[in-house]
Amino acid sequence: MKTLMKNIQQLTPKEIRNLIRNGKWDKPTAGLAMGYAQANLVILPEKYAFDFLLFCQRNPKPCPLLEVLEPGKFRTKFLSLNADIRTDIPLYNIYRKGKLEAQVKDIKGLWQKGFVSFLLGCSFSFEEAMLRAKIPVRHLEENKNVPMFISNIDCKPAGVFQGPMVVTMRPIPTEKVARVVQITSRYASVHGAPIQIGEPSAIGIKDLKKPDFGDPVTFKKGEIPVFWACGVTPQAVVMKARPDLCITHTPGHMFISDLLNEELAIL
Amino acid sequence: MKTLMKNIQQLTPKEIRNLIRNGKWDKPTAGLAMGYAQANLVILPEKYAFDFLLFCQRNPKPCPLLEVLEPGKFRTKFLSLNADIRTDIPLYNIYRKGKLEAQVKDIKGLWQKGFVSFLLGCSFSFEEAMLRAKIPVRHLEENKNVPMFISNIDCKPAGVFQGPMVVTMRPIPTEKVARVVQITSRYASVHGAPIQIGEPSAIGIKDLKKPDFGDPVTFKKGEIPVFWACGVTPQAVVMKARPDLCITHTPGHMFISDLLNEELAIL
Repeated sequence: MKTLMKNIQQLTPKEIRNLIRNGKWDKPTAGLAMGYAQANLVILPEKYAFDFLLFCQRNPKPCPLLEVLEPGKFRTKFLSLNADIRTDIPLYNIYRKGKLEAQVKDIKGLWQKGFVSFLLGCSFSFEEAMLRAKIPVRHLEENKNVPMFISNIDCKPAGVFQGPMVVTMRPIPTEKVARVVQITSRYASVHGAPIQIGEPSAIGIKDLKKPDFGDPVTFKKGEIPVFWACGVTPQAVVMKARPDLCITHTPGHMFISDLLNEELAIL
Repeated sequence: MKTLMKNIQQLTPKEIRNLIRNGKWDKPTAGLAMGYAQANLVILPEKYAFDFLLFCQRNPKPCPLLEVLEPGKFRTKFLSLNADIRTDIPLYNIYRKGKLEAQVKDIKGLWQKGFVSFLLGCSFSFEEAMLRAKIPVRHLEENKNVPMFISNIDCKPAGVFQGPMVVTMRPIPTEKVARVVQITSRYASVHGAPIQIGEPSAIGIKDLKKPDFGDPVTFKKGEIPVFWACGVTPQAVVMKARPDLCITHTPGHMFISDLLNEELAIL
């Protein structure tokens, strides 16, 4: 396993997707194909597709769409030219009426012709840019999951989809706050600039030590909390709408694209 | 008329929309409510809505969505809190099967419950920013329409919608090209950064003196052509798809929003 992990880190996105497609990798994708954008997946039956696309259009910070496939299509065209959305993700969550029913390694047997697949940007992309700029990413240093909070900011509803924005928090040294705004602003298609800086209570967060998802992380002297919109938002909103069926990636088990993070940067 | 024009320039967006709603203004909106964003309108029956929304998602430079209303809704929520899309635009074009059938001052009588309204950003927003930065906007100086060209860049198709990207051209002094890239990059939701700089033939444009739409403009010594994605693209693409019915604003007769251009800037 350790050898495979070491080897897999050398592989290209295409090679890793081939391993995944052949059932040889069902683990999280953090640290794989460094430099390449990874994406969250949400698959919905066609009757929900317009509402969800509209929800993403209205809430681009938590729901940054990288690619949407037409009804029934399972081949990506933008994030990769040869990926199959039914097989190229390490692990899938199957939800019925908002309840997790199963975790599976491919969804070929479940595929229906009206399925619409949404691929959304993920903060891995801007965290890599933060590290390059010597800005600390505490949860990575501490080998934890990023702390996530359910804020009191309501997303703009669309059709059956509505709910609060989930945010991630990263402690940032005050002297680097302006820089982290600049850096993450470049990545508008993967959550972009912070949505709040320095005042958790302003967005309904009472205790930074008690995240709603993920793990608490250490604050050092001179650091303040900085909050970004989080890709868990669309998943939470979809579950709340209790669609007949919804398929997502299993958290952390992302789609690995052929696009460099740098290609997503707007400046 | 001249007095009304002078007076109307002092009015707020809401006051101007009231005049328009009451049938007292059916002229172009250039120069009105300076500082506020104006928007293009496309209304389609519901059966085309997902495809068109997807087309815009895939082609954000020519089709920068500012607001999309849910099926049947005619009140805006984002660009303004009190606008009525059926009455608040000076003049509407009615197209059937891609052919212009009529120009009307309101569409209350034509409204259908499945209509989906798309409001898209317009380059007025970044031209204002260019002027503030003392970058020449030649067609404004010469009191002309911006020159537009059908490029050889194919938009990414979506469902029934496909076609080439239409671009606008502005001559820019070479020493100001970098600055104009910076300035327009800030306005990603109104076409954003240029798509080509300095080489018309690279995007299939043979003669800058013969635009496909709008007027030719003068080049001065030391200026090169700079091209931006144009909001005529989505209209051309829709007409090409020949939907049963499509309603747009009449060119130049835009929706005036309550949002400042500055509120649309991403940096």
